[in-house]
Amino acid sequence: MDHVIIFDTTLRDGEQSPGASMNVPEKLRLATQLEKLGVDVLEAGFPAASPGDFEAVQAISKKIRGVQVAALARTSKEDIERGWAAIRDAAKPRIHTFIATSDIHMKHKLKMSRDKVIQTTLETVRYAKSLTDNVEFSAEDASRSDRDFLCRVFEVAIDAGATTVNIPDTVGYSIPDEFGELVAYIRDHTPNIRKAVMSVHCHNDLGLATANTLAGVKAGVRQAEVTINGVGERAGNTSLEELVMSIHTRSSLLDLCTRINTREIYPTSRLVSMITGIIVQPNKAVVGANAFAHEAGIHQDGVLKNRMTYEIMEPATVGLDTNRLVLGKHSGRHAFRQRLNDLGYDLEKKEVDRLFGKFKELADKRKELLDEDIEALVAEEILRIPDVYKLLYLNVVSGTVAVPTATVKLMIEGQEAQGAGFGIGPIDATFNTIAKMVGSSAGLLRFSVNAITGGMDAQGEVTVRLQENGLVSLGKGTDPDIITASAKAYINGLNRLGYLKNNPSLKAEERRL
Amino acid sequence: MDHVIIFDTTLRDGEQSPGASMNVPEKLRLATQLEKLGVDVLEAGFPAASPGDFEAVQAISKKIRGVQVAALARTSKEDIERGWAAIRDAAKPRIHTFIATSDIHMKHKLKMSRDKVIQTTLETVRYAKSLTDNVEFSAEDASRSDRDFLCRVFEVAIDAGATTVNIPDTVGYSIPDEFGELVAYIRDHTPNIRKAVMSVHCHNDLGLATANTLAGVKAGVRQAEVTINGVGERAGNTSLEELVMSIHTRSSLLDLCTRINTREIYPTSRLVSMITGIIVQPNKAVVGANAFAHEAGIHQDGVLKNRMTYEIMEPATVGLDTNRLVLGKHSGRHAFRQRLNDLGYDLEKKEVDRLFGKFKELADKRKELLDEDIEALVAEEILRIPDVYKLLYLNVVSGTVAVPTATVKLMIEGQEAQGAGFGIGPIDATFNTIAKMVGSSAGLLRFSVNAITGGMDAQGEVTVRLQENGLVSLGKGTDPDIITASAKAYINGLNRLGYLKNNPSLKAEERRL
Repeated sequence: MDHVIIFDTTLRDGEQSPGASMNVPEKLRLATQLEKLGVDVLEAGFPAASPGDFEAVQAISKKIRGVQVAALARTSKEDIERGWAAIRDAAKPRIHTFIATSDIHMKHKLKMSRDKVIQTTLETVRYAKSLTDNVEFSAEDASRSDRDFLCRVFEVAIDAGATTVNIPDTVGYSIPDEFGELVAYIRDHTPNIRKAVMSVHCHNDLGLATANTLAGVKAGVRQAEVTINGVGERAGNTSLEELVMSIHTRSSLLDLCTRINTREIYPTSRLVSMITGIIVQPNKAVVGANAFAHEAGIHQDGVLKNRMTYEIMEPATVGLDTNRLVLGKHSGRHAFRQRLNDLGYDLEKKEVDRLFGKFKELADKRKELLDEDIEALVAEEILRIPDVYKLLYLNVVSGTVAVPTATVKLMIEGQEAQGAGFGIGPIDATFNTIAKMVGSSAGLLRFSVNAITGGMDAQGEVTVRLQENGLVSLGKGTDPDIITASAKAYINGLNRLGYLKNNPSLKAEERRL
Repeated sequence: MDHVIIFDTTLRDGEQSPGASMNVPEKLRLATQLEKLGVDVLEAGFPAASPGDFEAVQAISKKIRGVQVAALARTSKEDIERGWAAIRDAAKPRIHTFIATSDIHMKHKLKMSRDKVIQTTLETVRYAKSLTDNVEFSAEDASRSDRDFLCRVFEVAIDAGATTVNIPDTVGYSIPDEFGELVAYIRDHTPNIRKAVMSVHCHNDLGLATANTLAGVKAGVRQAEVTINGVGERAGNTSLEELVMSIHTRSSLLDLCTRINTREIYPTSRLVSMITGIIVQPNKAVVGANAFAHEAGIHQDGVLKNRMTYEIMEPATVGLDTNRLVLGKHSGRHAFRQRLNDLGYDLEKKEVDRLFGKFKELADKRKELLDEDIEALVAEEILRIPDVYKLLYLNVVSGTVAVPTATVKLMIEGQEAQGAGFGIGPIDATFNTIAKMVGSSAGLLRFSVNAITGGMDAQGEVTVRLQENGLVSLGKGTDPDIITASAKAYINGLNRLGYLKNNPSLKAEERRL
C-alpha cells in the first residue's frame, strides 16, 4: 500500500491568514507538535520574506530532527541563498521554489514571457540542486495555466534536479474531476515525470480542497500539501485532518495510507487554534466540537446500541478522549514538569518555576485543569514575548445601570502609568483607557471569545484583531476573568502591531502559492 | 442549461445540530429569508417529532407562498397524516418520507427484513400520494446499502407515486468518485427512474459533502439537499453557499445553474449564525470572514491591480458589500420601519414601537448601526419569547485584584428577586448568582462571544450551551456590555431548557437522514 507524503504548511501558508502571524517560540512549539503528529515534511516559512521568518525557519531547522524541513523561496538566486542559509542546519532540509505559470499571473504579476519563466525555472532549480538533493518546484496558479506549457515547465524543473513537482490550485477554482484530469494530463505528458514525486496544493474557496486533493492522489500524486484546521489565506488550504481521515477511513478502497499518528490530530488542532487565534466552527469535519455523534453529555441510544449505525470514526482515533483530566490543585511540581515534557515543552528550570506558580494560582480557583489549560498557560507566560506594554492592574465596574468604568495600570517601556476611562461596556471602557494611555489609534476589527475548556469555571480565551495604517495584528489573552483576558489580548495585539511596524515583510501577493 | 433544484433543510436537519433548536418566530424569520434567497424547496421540519415542530411547520406553510414547503415523516401512516396536517395549507406542499435501507440500519434500528422495508415503502408512498402529488422518498443510509436492493426500493417508491427520490450519504462516509458511481448505478438500474427527479443529501464527516453533491449532479441528480453554513448534525450537511457558488462560478464547465439570488447568501449566512448560535469560522469557504482576498482594511496590491489574479468570486456577488451602513442616531421611525420591512419583517405597530425605543437607546451609544444590529435587536426583543425568567438589573465589579462580584435582580414567574454572589470572573459570578436564585443545576458546556459588527463599540453576541439531565439548550444574548449579554444568554438558555423539559421530542436517532 502506497504512502501519501503529508507536507504540512501551517507554519507558512497557514501563517498567511490575515493577522495570524506567530512568533518564534510559538512556531517552535507548533513544529514540535507537528513532528509528534508524524508529518513527513514541515514547511517552516519563507526566509526571504522577513528577518522574523528567517529566524523562525532557522530555529526550527536546528530543533526538529525527525521531519524534513522546507523553506519557501521565489525563483531567484537571492531567495534560494537566503532559504538555504536558514535550513542548512536541518537534519533533512528541502528547498521549495515557485514561479507562476498562468498567463494572467505571468502578465500581471511577473511581467515575464513564457520563455523567461522556463529559463528562470531552469537556472533556479539547478542552483538549488547545487545546495541540496531535496528540491521541490511549484508552478503557481497551475490550475489556470496552459497544460502543455505546464508540462514543459515541469520537465525543465525535473531535468534541472527537482525531486518533487507541485501543482497548486492557487485560487481554489478547480472542481475535482477537472483537477484529477489536469494531474493525469501532467502525468501522461511530462516525459521525465517518473523521476519526481507529484504533489498538489489546494485552496478551499469553493469548499472543494479536500476532494481536489483526493482526485489528485487518485491520478498519481503522492504528496499532499495541507494545513491544520485548513487555515490559510482566504478560505484556507486543504485540511490535514480531513485528508488524513478520508484516507484512514477509506484506506482499503483507496489502497493508500499515511504515516500520521491520528491520535495527535485533535491536540494539534487545538494548539493551532490557540496559537493563531483562528477558531474552529462546531460543524467542522473531524475536529469541530460537534463532529462526533457522541457529543459529551448527550445520551444517544442509536450510537450506544451500535456505534457503526451513525459513526464512521471513533473519537479516540483522532485523540478526542473523554478522560483528559490531568492535574489538580494537589498536583506537585514533579507531575507538572512531567506533563509539560509530555506535551513537548523543553523548558528551563526558571521557566518551569514561573509556570508552576501560575499553575497553582489557577488550580486554586478551579477544581481541575486539562492539557488545554496547561497549553494556554505556556502560551501566555512563555511563548508570548512581553514587549513594550504590560498589564499591571485592572479594575472594572459595569452593569445595566452603572456607566462602565475601567481603572488600568500599565508598564510602558519600563515606566508605570495609570489611567481610567468609560465605555459602552466594560471591555470597551478597558480598551478606551489603554488606547488613551499608550496613544494608539488602532482600530478594533474583530473581537471573539472562547472558553478554553468547558464548565462554569472556564478560562476565557480572547482574540482581538487590530488594524493601524494597513497593518493588521492578532492579539490573544487568557484569564478566568474575561475582562482581564480581553485587556491582555488588546495589549498583546498592540505589542504585535509594534513588532509588525518595525519588521516589514513581503506583501501578500509575493508570498502566495 | 439545466437547473439544479435547491432543497434547503436548515430548518430541519440544520436544527438537529446539538442545542440549535429554534422557536417558531425564529423559524418564520429564517423561512422568509430563505424565500428571498430563492431556494426551490424549504424543508420546514418534522411535524411528528414534537408539538413545537408541528406548530412551526404549520406557521411556515401559511406564510411562505413562493417556495415548496416540505415536511419530513417516517414511513408510517401516523407520521404522514401528521405531516400533511401541518403543510396542507401551504401553496406548494411536499411530503418527504424516509426509511433506512442499509443492512446495518435495518437490523439494528428498524429490526425489519428487506421485504418488510419494501412493503412499508409501497404502502406509505401510496398513502402520501393520495394526499398530494408532490411526494419525496429518501433511502436513509443509501451509501451503505446494497445497490440492487436500493434500486428495487426506489423502483417501488416511484411506482407508488414518488416524484423525487433522494440518495442520502447519512454518515458522511462516501468519497466523490464512489458516490458518483452509486448515483450512476441507480440511474442505470432503476427501470422507472426517469419518472422522478433524483436528489442527493450529503453529510460532511470527511469534509467531502460539497464534492459528493457535485459528483451526484454530474451523474444526473437535479436536486441537492443543503443547509446554510453547512449546519447540521455532527460535521453538518452540504453547504448551500459552497454548492451554489461552485455551480455559479463554474457554470459553463458544468452546464448547470440554480435559481438562487446569490446576493442574499451572506445576509442569510449571518442570520442563521445569529439565530442558531453556531459560529462560522473565518476560513469557511464563501461566507467566512477571510473568504475574500480583499479583507476590509488590508491593502493588497495584487488584488487591486487585477482582481482576477487571486479572486474567483467578487464579494458583492454573495452580498458582502462594504457599504452596509443603514441607520444612525438621527434616523426616524419611518426609516426604521422601512428597514425592518426590507429585511423581511412584518411586525405589528406595537412591536415596531418597542423596537424603535431600543434602537434609539443603542443608536445613542453608537455612531452607526448595520443590518446585523437591527437583526440582533429583533432577535432579542421580538423573536425570543421571554418565558419564566427575565433580567431586571445587573451590576458587577471585577479586576485583577477585586473578587469578582455580581448583583442581580430577576423576574421569576412574575415575582421580583434579588441576589448577589462571587465567581472567578465577572461572568462566572453572574452565572453563579443567577443559578442560585432560580435553583438550577444546569452545567455550562460551552460559552462563546462574537462581536456582531466590528469596531470598538461593537455589540457583543454571547452564546451559551447548557445541559441538564441529558437535555441541551443554547441561549443567546446581545448587548454592548458583554457581561449583560452573557447574563441575557444564560437566562435565555435556562428558559429554553425549561421549554425542552415540557416539550419532549423524538430522540435524535429517529430524526436522522
